[in-house]
Amino acid sequence: MKHGHLSTKELADFIRERATIEEAYSRSMTKLAKSASNYTQLGTFAPVWDVFKTSTEKLASCHLDLVRRLQELIKEVHKYGDEQIKAYKKTKEEVSGTLEAVQNIQSITQALQKSKENYNAKCLEQERLKKEGATPREIDKATVKSKKATDTYKLYVEKYAAVKSDFEQKMTETAQKFQDIEETHLLHMKEIIESFSNTIKDIHLQIGEVHEEFINNMTNTTVESLIQKFAESKGTGKERPDTSINMNPRGSTISGCFIV
Amino acid sequence: MKHGHLSTKELADFIRERATIEEAYSRSMTKLAKSASNYTQLGTFAPVWDVFKTSTEKLASCHLDLVRRLQELIKEVHKYGDEQIKAYKKTKEEVSGTLEAVQNIQSITQALQKSKENYNAKCLEQERLKKEGATPREIDKATVKSKKATDTYKLYVEKYAAVKSDFEQKMTETAQKFQDIEETHLLHMKEIIESFSNTIKDIHLQIGEVHEEFINNMTNTTVESLIQKFAESKGTGKERPDTSINMNPRGSTISGCFIV
Repeated sequence: MKHGHLSTKELADFIRERATIEEAYSRSMTKLAKSASNYTQLGTFAPVWDVFKTSTEKLASCHLDLVRRLQELIKEVHKYGDEQIKAYKKTKEEVSGTLEAVQNIQSITQALQKSKENYNAKCLEQERLKKEGATPREIDKATVKSKKATDTYKLYVEKYAAVKSDFEQKMTETAQKFQDIEETHLLHMKEIIESFSNTIKDIHLQIGEVHEEFINNMTNTTVESLIQKFAESKGTGKERPDTSINMNPRGSTISGCFIV
Repeated sequence: MKHGHLSTKELADFIRERATIEEAYSRSMTKLAKSASNYTQLGTFAPVWDVFKTSTEKLASCHLDLVRRLQELIKEVHKYGDEQIKAYKKTKEEVSGTLEAVQNIQSITQALQKSKENYNAKCLEQERLKKEGATPREIDKATVKSKKATDTYKLYVEKYAAVKSDFEQKMTETAQKFQDIEETHLLHMKEIIESFSNTIKDIHLQIGEVHEEFINNMTNTTVESLIQKFAESKGTGKERPDTSINMNPRGSTISGCFIV
């Protein structure tokens, strides 16, 4: 059970480390977007930097969104971890009877072993006396001892059967309880991981859209449109400037001076 | 033209900065994969860390692949930048005749203006003498001067027309050449950017596959399989252990001692 709580803690650590990585990446992307906007605003290529800047800012934003969603998930994992501790404490109390049953079967097993050895010894003693032709009095005495040892052994065998049954029942219940706890724990962990991978998947789709948009924007940024924009920004017109010379001298009305 | 080369340099800078970001991200992912493999190997959740580790390592690898491909692209951009410098030098030599034409039209325009002013002055002088009733000798002298000024002016008008034609032709050619250079430059830049976005797109698809694989692996890592693995690792069997007691005392064959 304690490993269960440790793995919850470790899963939170893992997600936190991932969030930290995504945050650093997002910050770097924001910096890169700034670089793009600091590049030269002169020349025909200048408007392309806006396309790069917008796309890079959006990438930064996607990864920051991921950070926020991972932080929400970490909170959920912590909440689950707290519930887990409480549930484990409760279970520990519930299974205290099983510990008692374990101690009972340990002591009854020792007593049973001891009575078995005593029974064996008494039986062998009785047999030895018969073989060696001992007095009937001696044999009767050994028979009484053997009978007593047999009764004691019998008693412990019965006691052992009862304790064993209790032990088995409690152990089965506890094992089932522990298995249920593990199953619930693993199901919960799998839910958290599903939430984690859904988040990653969502953001991955968003990033894909940013890429598509960038590709479309670049397709729309044609060479012609860039040259057009540049010409407009420089104020160079589309018509050839008028460079004809007026051959009439200003203010002169003398016919003799006209050059035709 | 110089802005063209600057934008090539800046595009290389932009891609390099992006590659640096991806490299840092890849390194962090490798570190995260190591964290996953350092988490507890005890408990039922342990095998899940392998799934995380594998997936995180693959993510790191995708981003490192991106770094490599961006570095290749930077080399291409630099190569293009070098070619650009050579091409620009060649063009500068080619358009040197245009600079001469510009200087010619500037000096002929000045000379034309001067001759026009002289012509105006001489015509007005001739008119003034006529009005004031000057001597025929004086008027003849002024007429000769006026005639000479008219001829000079006429000459410069013709010269101007010739120089203007040359200037216009050379300027048109040069403007076309510059426009061609800009168009070729922008086309080349767009090709580089296309290569850049194709690379990003490829890696994005690869990352998507890593996510899908992670989701599939998590689906296959069922709660049952985790509990099964844990039970196997702990050596706990599936059968209940045999705890029956043999009531026959070892070695004893005495009928009286048998407990049925």
